[in-house]
Amino acid sequence: MYYPEPISKLIDSFMKLPGIGPKTAVRLAFYVLNMKDDDVLNFANALVNAKRELTHCSICGHITDKEVCAVCSDPHRDESIICVVEDPKDVIAMEKMKEFNGKYHVLHGAISPMDGIGPEDINVPDLLNRLKDEEVKEIILATNANIEGEATAMYISRLVKPSGIRTTRIAHGLPVGGDLEYADEVTLSRALEGRREL
Amino acid sequence: MYYPEPISKLIDSFMKLPGIGPKTAVRLAFYVLNMKDDDVLNFANALVNAKRELTHCSICGHITDKEVCAVCSDPHRDESIICVVEDPKDVIAMEKMKEFNGKYHVLHGAISPMDGIGPEDINVPDLLNRLKDEEVKEIILATNANIEGEATAMYISRLVKPSGIRTTRIAHGLPVGGDLEYADEVTLSRALEGRREL
Repeated sequence: MYYPEPISKLIDSFMKLPGIGPKTAVRLAFYVLNMKDDDVLNFANALVNAKRELTHCSICGHITDKEVCAVCSDPHRDESIICVVEDPKDVIAMEKMKEFNGKYHVLHGAISPMDGIGPEDINVPDLLNRLKDEEVKEIILATNANIEGEATAMYISRLVKPSGIRTTRIAHGLPVGGDLEYADEVTLSRALEGRREL
Repeated sequence: MYYPEPISKLIDSFMKLPGIGPKTAVRLAFYVLNMKDDDVLNFANALVNAKRELTHCSICGHITDKEVCAVCSDPHRDESIICVVEDPKDVIAMEKMKEFNGKYHVLHGAISPMDGIGPEDINVPDLLNRLKDEEVKEIILATNANIEGEATAMYISRLVKPSGIRTTRIAHGLPVGGDLEYADEVTLSRALEGRREL
């Protein structure tokens, strides 16, 4: 009623995005009206292309616009270590660190009985196939440090261990820059448990 | 480097929007990847259409997808009162109130010497033309309550007054629900100045 149809449709589209309420959606939509034609067209194309061209790497499951992702097709990366993560965003986080030179495996989720997500719903079978085909020496389980992530790490480590491949879990403890005073009990207990010789 | 090209383009597009930083842009872009195909296509179309189909009403300057906006073409609206606002969003705000039955005039800005915006840069000539052609009895100056808005209201009232048309300014004072304690001095002084007989 208040808005001409083209802009109310745009407002509705913005409101479908996470964390964008009615007021922000209106602000963004009006901002778009004042943007350069080219920028708006690029935005629209970027939306459609991202959705259309991006697919999951046939080896590790990371997002890519090719058949095999940049990490999997890089001959300089160490094939003997696979870092298992829940989400493509986790791969990006690891890559930003610039210290890990192995390969990845993206599960696209974590085991969560509460949400009805069982082991068969995440990308574990592909991981097991990779372990058969590739010469893997170590699996680093880098799932999130919450209940679902821990359960998933546990589950995978039990599946993999019998084959003799080294299975490790990323460390839990105080985040760098964190205050002991403000750390929760569980984190502190894990930090103590994982203490190392200096 | 970290992101495949289609998604990094989408992230860049999101980052051009106001109030959306790199982290939010990444979150939104990844969210789009998991949206339904149709929703993404609708979003892209809404962007292009909003930009392409929306234009300014040839009479009042409000945004519309027709030649003349819904308010200007509504025969039930009172043509003798024109409410002058800075921005199409202000028209929407007034319309939401559902109490004003006159017409509008959108200036698309306010006089602001600091930003190099003079009287000739805002939509005043069209307003003066309307005053000649239409039978207008009152002009309500509903520009913002800041320096630019006040200057613009002043300027227009000086232009219009000689023609004998009633020129009013919306009231300044305590916002409804506002605490006297927290009101700034200028608002309080305006509230006192504008006091009315009970």
